[in-house]
Amino acid sequence: MKQILLFLLTVISLNSFTQDDSTFIRKVYDEALERGESYENLRGLCKDIGARITGSAEAEMAVKWGEKLLNSYGFDKVYLQEIKVPHWERGTKEAAWIINEKGETIKLDILALGGSVGTNGLTQGEVIEVKNLEALKLLSENDVKGKIVFISQAFDQKNIQTFKSYGACYPIRGKGTNEAGKLNAKAVVIRSLATPEDDFPHTGTMHYDEDVNKIPGAAISTRNATLLSSWLKQGKVVLKMEMDCKKFEDVTSYNVIAEINGKDDKIITWGGHLDSWDVGEGAHDDGAGIVHSIEALRILKQLGYQPNHKLRCVLFMNEENGNMGGKSYAKIASENKEEHICAIESDRGGFLPTGFDVNGTEEQLKMVQNFKPLLADFELFRFNKGFGGVDIGPLKEYYPNMIQLGMAINSQIYFNYHHSNNDIFENVNKRELELGAAAMATMIYLMDQKLK
Amino acid sequence: MKQILLFLLTVISLNSFTQDDSTFIRKVYDEALERGESYENLRGLCKDIGARITGSAEAEMAVKWGEKLLNSYGFDKVYLQEIKVPHWERGTKEAAWIINEKGETIKLDILALGGSVGTNGLTQGEVIEVKNLEALKLLSENDVKGKIVFISQAFDQKNIQTFKSYGACYPIRGKGTNEAGKLNAKAVVIRSLATPEDDFPHTGTMHYDEDVNKIPGAAISTRNATLLSSWLKQGKVVLKMEMDCKKFEDVTSYNVIAEINGKDDKIITWGGHLDSWDVGEGAHDDGAGIVHSIEALRILKQLGYQPNHKLRCVLFMNEENGNMGGKSYAKIASENKEEHICAIESDRGGFLPTGFDVNGTEEQLKMVQNFKPLLADFELFRFNKGFGGVDIGPLKEYYPNMIQLGMAINSQIYFNYHHSNNDIFENVNKRELELGAAAMATMIYLMDQKLK
Repeated sequence: MKQILLFLLTVISLNSFTQDDSTFIRKVYDEALERGESYENLRGLCKDIGARITGSAEAEMAVKWGEKLLNSYGFDKVYLQEIKVPHWERGTKEAAWIINEKGETIKLDILALGGSVGTNGLTQGEVIEVKNLEALKLLSENDVKGKIVFISQAFDQKNIQTFKSYGACYPIRGKGTNEAGKLNAKAVVIRSLATPEDDFPHTGTMHYDEDVNKIPGAAISTRNATLLSSWLKQGKVVLKMEMDCKKFEDVTSYNVIAEINGKDDKIITWGGHLDSWDVGEGAHDDGAGIVHSIEALRILKQLGYQPNHKLRCVLFMNEENGNMGGKSYAKIASENKEEHICAIESDRGGFLPTGFDVNGTEEQLKMVQNFKPLLADFELFRFNKGFGGVDIGPLKEYYPNMIQLGMAINSQIYFNYHHSNNDIFENVNKRELELGAAAMATMIYLMDQKLK
Repeated sequence: MKQILLFLLTVISLNSFTQDDSTFIRKVYDEALERGESYENLRGLCKDIGARITGSAEAEMAVKWGEKLLNSYGFDKVYLQEIKVPHWERGTKEAAWIINEKGETIKLDILALGGSVGTNGLTQGEVIEVKNLEALKLLSENDVKGKIVFISQAFDQKNIQTFKSYGACYPIRGKGTNEAGKLNAKAVVIRSLATPEDDFPHTGTMHYDEDVNKIPGAAISTRNATLLSSWLKQGKVVLKMEMDCKKFEDVTSYNVIAEINGKDDKIITWGGHLDSWDVGEGAHDDGAGIVHSIEALRILKQLGYQPNHKLRCVLFMNEENGNMGGKSYAKIASENKEEHICAIESDRGGFLPTGFDVNGTEEQLKMVQNFKPLLADFELFRFNKGFGGVDIGPLKEYYPNMIQLGMAINSQIYFNYHHSNNDIFENVNKRELELGAAAMATMIYLMDQKLK
């Protein structure tokens, strides 16, 4: 019945867009596909800067890169927003081996989890496998003490959306090391949060409670994880590892912001995150979101669009390990008594865009779903209730009535690359990236037109 | 108003699928994604057979590969359907150079067009560029005689669907050489029918009229084509080329067919094409369609599905240069007085499936569009009037009332690989391939359930 109502509402609201909208959007796509700059901008960010974890020299260079590029487009205003961010470094040593009872030894593909302490020299222990975080919590200190805990939860391949599989495994990376530390394990290795079975380990953020015994945590490749599980079925396995990663004092960094003024001061904001993990080139995560966001503003300016509201593109810093960019941006916006009516985020890679997820009221969702017939020509089909994004999330605390949109993107291949050395420019397709930029510009335009 | 009516019809017909349908389709996807065999089957076809142009030893091996694989699944019937097919071979020599007035020389990335005559030793001529087939037709024999015609039409990047760009350029490949032959040109080179600017030449079929002067035709890479255009703006350019490709007598080959019996003898057929061009591995074109088609039948059998109609999977031979598989299949079906009610084809690569294009009546289109709410859970959104496929096309002549469906697939990257040495197994993603197989099995199931 709900579906029927939805359809009827769609029918009734078909007049919510015009021929002018369609013509303008066609121009947006022409600009993105024929004279687009997103792909070459991404090449610059990946090849001239590279991996750019918060607090690193590369992150500082990325801020300068973003500021310079935005200035080159002649927007009404370009500025830096100062924030405090964490600073963790991988160090130079990172190695691990497994040895079975026959003395067979395999070197593992390993990456320390972001935020982990180091091992303080070579450490070793017998491996105990648990299937997931719940299984780990059922163990006692006797089971675990002095051992290396291996959490082997794999992606559920049955999920159509790979983000669902990622979400289900997220606790083993975020909390696994902390839980094993409570039981005085020596260290934790997890199966990488990744779709395929291959040789790339995938890092990502993890968290320690204040008063817990802080032990090292690392991810091994999915292929290594499958091998380790099979060895453990046959007998005891010892794991040796060394990592010298560590946390430093917080440092100063910046969100990078560009604006085009509107007829009023209400704000439509959008962005991606400028930081990445310290491996690969942060091409899909989130170089793509950064160049989508910049390109969207460039296209609207290039087409001579005169917005109703203030359009603000934000290159957020520190999404990966602290979200200080997003949190600080929201707080400052509120302190400055800005009126934010809409926020849009691109942080799901540079693959084919399929639509937008809407974090808002039923009415806001319907408004977006009314665009379906208009956007079907551009192969945008998916308009569901969902998550906007990590960077723009904190704005909801201060502006509970705003609409937030997360660009929905073909998720099938994202977790082949995410947080790994495989996330490089060569794995981004030019046209798919350009279609993402056009979809962002389109949704910004529609929000600017439809929101009062 | 038409759209409103369509929506209302959708509302009215919401009861055209049931909870059982949804449950069954979920099982189809689980089987494809968790225990799927399509990816390993594609590996076999690409790596154990490889490129398999009609008439080649590899095509013969592909027939045996298909027959053996289908037999291994224990379907009700597996058989070969004998057909006559053309036989053209590239030969061993294929090279070309361009030389400008300063004597600068560049070796070109070149592939003879499929069906072309050879050059009979080294040939050379001054290059004359035309933008497209219409421009060529406006020239006289005086303009062209003894020269090498370069047709430089590029993909229109503004099209959202890359198939539209391909269709627009298709005449330069299919007819350009024939038209230049009429004007006694020495040879033709065309800009490859491809999306990106890179170094891969893309072959494909071409046609000579019976009584025309048959001259050689070849494709050069898009990067070479852009370079050649820029050289021609500066002065005269000479092109030297040698190719020893030629046509042989027709040979015998086979369509490979597998069936599961239904409650009646009406036939739902589907397939892809087993032949490929003689470069790369025919992974996307159309190894993907072949393993989609086989996997769809395997899944339905594995789930114990008891069909209403006869389900028939066909691995068509010779789609690329003659379509004798499709034409012969349709003729034989008619001669045998078979009743074909539906045909489905997968021949757009192993990328993310997005829906189905429907070649049928308005009523048939509506029937398929009514599945939208059911299939949205599986990220299938696109159900438009469109083309079914080359292999199944000839059936329409004998069965004008049948519904034909072409699986719609993300087209953005297809023409990076199509008909080139870049169309290899490594460029197919496992999950996207599996989702295609599941979508095929799903549509076969729905047609079997809904068609009387």
